[in-house]
Amino acid sequence: MHASFVRRVGIVHPLIQAPMAGATTPALAAAVSEAGGLGSLGAGYLEPEAILAQAADTRALTRRPFGVNLFVLPDDFEPDMAAVARARARLDALMEREGIEARTQLPARWAPRFSDQLAALREARPAVASFAFGLLSPAQLRELQALGIVVVGTATTAAETRAWAELGADAVCVQGAEAGGHRGTFLHAPDEAMVGLFALLPLALRAAAECAPDMPVIAAGGIMDGRAMLAAEVLGAAASQLGTAFLGCPESAAAAAWKRDLPAAEDHRVTTIRSFSGRAARGLRNRYVEAMEGAMAELPGYPALNALTAPLRRAAAQAGRGDLLSEWCGQAAALVRDLPAAELVAVLMDEYGAAARALE
Amino acid sequence: MHASFVRRVGIVHPLIQAPMAGATTPALAAAVSEAGGLGSLGAGYLEPEAILAQAADTRALTRRPFGVNLFVLPDDFEPDMAAVARARARLDALMEREGIEARTQLPARWAPRFSDQLAALREARPAVASFAFGLLSPAQLRELQALGIVVVGTATTAAETRAWAELGADAVCVQGAEAGGHRGTFLHAPDEAMVGLFALLPLALRAAAECAPDMPVIAAGGIMDGRAMLAAEVLGAAASQLGTAFLGCPESAAAAAWKRDLPAAEDHRVTTIRSFSGRAARGLRNRYVEAMEGAMAELPGYPALNALTAPLRRAAAQAGRGDLLSEWCGQAAALVRDLPAAELVAVLMDEYGAAARALE
Repeated sequence: MHASFVRRVGIVHPLIQAPMAGATTPALAAAVSEAGGLGSLGAGYLEPEAILAQAADTRALTRRPFGVNLFVLPDDFEPDMAAVARARARLDALMEREGIEARTQLPARWAPRFSDQLAALREARPAVASFAFGLLSPAQLRELQALGIVVVGTATTAAETRAWAELGADAVCVQGAEAGGHRGTFLHAPDEAMVGLFALLPLALRAAAECAPDMPVIAAGGIMDGRAMLAAEVLGAAASQLGTAFLGCPESAAAAAWKRDLPAAEDHRVTTIRSFSGRAARGLRNRYVEAMEGAMAELPGYPALNALTAPLRRAAAQAGRGDLLSEWCGQAAALVRDLPAAELVAVLMDEYGAAARALE
Repeated sequence: MHASFVRRVGIVHPLIQAPMAGATTPALAAAVSEAGGLGSLGAGYLEPEAILAQAADTRALTRRPFGVNLFVLPDDFEPDMAAVARARARLDALMEREGIEARTQLPARWAPRFSDQLAALREARPAVASFAFGLLSPAQLRELQALGIVVVGTATTAAETRAWAELGADAVCVQGAEAGGHRGTFLHAPDEAMVGLFALLPLALRAAAECAPDMPVIAAGGIMDGRAMLAAEVLGAAASQLGTAFLGCPESAAAAAWKRDLPAAEDHRVTTIRSFSGRAARGLRNRYVEAMEGAMAELPGYPALNALTAPLRRAAAQAGRGDLLSEWCGQAAALVRDLPAAELVAVLMDEYGAAARALE
């Protein structure tokens, strides 16, 4: 299992730096890939030209394989404009109350068009393309695979794993309930798909075995050190995908206030939040989250709310106001370390090796 | 770590059969203990004389160590009688609609008195006493430890682990969000304390290390096979506590309909339920759960609701109506095996050994 994904992609370690949209950079992805893991670009929010630019910037820093992640979404959205108006009023009032000068605005487009992003992805041709929020069509999958791109689906339940395996994905990354950031869930209501990794990994492996017995399963969610990487491997994972662990790196694009708040993130304060983007995502329960509690029913869904909160999130980051920022993180965020990415990879692999030796 | 708990208690394997109140029996506990694990009696619902009788029955079957679990609760309750009346009306109507002949009744007592249960526990003097829902007082802890009883606290967050460690517990069992049955949470709202085991174990070990560096931490939640036991050990657990895995055993007291529904329990249908007992507990989303959705705000809390649903649960079990029963189970319930307990222990330990050898 282990060797299958690592060898196929041509990396050294069974370690993937998670593609955290908004927090990854070419410098982070390249540093991880240079260190023998698989660096990734979270490109879900990027327009096609930015995808191409970030891929080129990454390639300028490393000749090793890296991955690019997209959100599978319909090309066009028509948000409920009454809900948009309510959200704007509420967000503008909040910004005024909090002394944030920015105000909401109607964006030219609610989100990048997925088919255009996908075309850019094919042009960029990374070693790995991963997808969340939905399934590719069979034709989309075939086009990527025909280019030699390894396609990784994201699943949060056994049924979602089966769906990607039946489609013919090269691997599936199972996202445990512990994971930070947006839930990849696409077949269920988000709160029905909060399956902890200890349950999800064996269930996903069994589901995959029914239709794609050799398909590698990658573990994500709550993995912060090399010991947890080995534990995931014991449970059958072909590799571990770590996101929050890399947020503290100088190469990550997480705002300074966000990075500063991570070591103090108590597990019971790392919660599921819909009020930043309209989709369930795990992050710190902060002042904004508490202010918006109970308001979701009247607000628009993803991606409209995500676009509307962008000015607030940008301004809060600039003002050092972590309490008004989407501070995405997994449940074990308190274990974050602020090491340069290459050093973190080395430490993780040392821990992984030591944990394996301890069992002998 | 590993050796510390196993040796201290005098068992052979780092394996605890979870004390599932209402589903354990002396036969189950004794079979597990005889096979080298730690069998347990879930005594939270038992009156003192039943605790003594079950402990005696267990001792008649094995001379090996076993555990007894209690819920830490105030001795007396005064439920909101208007909420009790609303619950009775709703439950009676549901039973009538479903063709269940039973009806609710006001119990002589809402729950056994904790201090009387504790006195019985001291008299029964099991090797291990474990506690959920709250902390013991320092005096209660000392009295148990003075009798040579190993005291194990239950924690669902790092803060709860710290609380038990500071109190001086001999070990803490961390209950991951994956776990079936009642949440042990006592410092937080239940939905703030759904921490997956991959995050909870390292966080709990770090919290314990600050005040009780040698205190063993036991892993519970979603562990269904020997491979997951080894994974928990890699993460630092001194032993694994498995509940749902033992529900399918002929020695478990789970109703036939409950046992029958477990292998088909899809992960996204294993949810958190308050409508059976008034406390958050993990189990199958069935007809009863759906019928009561949205009603919790008007119903009484634990233990009043638990007492009021007892006639329904009993009648549903007798009628083979799993869909009206509290079908507690962890998120990986679909991996359950219907083996006799002794055989299951042997299979688990074979898997555990094989997983360890696979790493060499």
